[in-house]
Amino acid sequence: MSEFSNVTVLKKANIYSDGNVTSRTLVFPDGSKKTLGIMLPGEYEFGTAEKELMEIQSGELDVLLPGATDWRTFSDGTAFEVPANAKFSLKVRVVTDYCCSYIK
Amino acid sequence: MSEFSNVTVLKKANIYSDGNVTSRTLVFPDGSKKTLGIMLPGEYEFGTAEKELMEIQSGELDVLLPGATDWRTFSDGTAFEVPANAKFSLKVRVVTDYCCSYIK
Repeated sequence: MSEFSNVTVLKKANIYSDGNVTSRTLVFPDGSKKTLGIMLPGEYEFGTAEKELMEIQSGELDVLLPGATDWRTFSDGTAFEVPANAKFSLKVRVVTDYCCSYIK
Repeated sequence: MSEFSNVTVLKKANIYSDGNVTSRTLVFPDGSKKTLGIMLPGEYEFGTAEKELMEIQSGELDVLLPGATDWRTFSDGTAFEVPANAKFSLKVRVVTDYCCSYIK
């Protein structure tokens, strides 16, 4: 699927880490939300509220998932889940285009 | 208006200048298009195909419009137009969140 139809898009961007991580929020007819975002190379730590599914559309990054001791590498066409109320760390190697789904 | 409703959003980002300028494409029910984008600090030159209306949602940048000799400063809540088939230069001072409308 190359596009999302019949969605509401918030005009204002979500901006983190001086703009090195930014995203746009999409709201679907069923009330569910996704963000489409860009991460520039760098190291970041993020926390979740809801469970998240992170789909990597392009790019490459290493991820340390909650409770994990080993970093795992993700790139184009791969995905990972992060539990709710958890922290995870990212080392973004190249500009990364992602889609994050928030799962209730 | 804080959101756009009933739009189609392309999943893949538009990525320019090593990710320092990125945007998402929105298609409206009437077929018209807008992009919602982020520009990180830096100097850029862009060209238009269609006429563009650039609305600055947040940020600050200096713009040299086609044919102009003086740079003009734009920030939160301001906007400028660029004619079709023209080049314009930007000096982005702080992370800038914009909405670009393509006008036929």
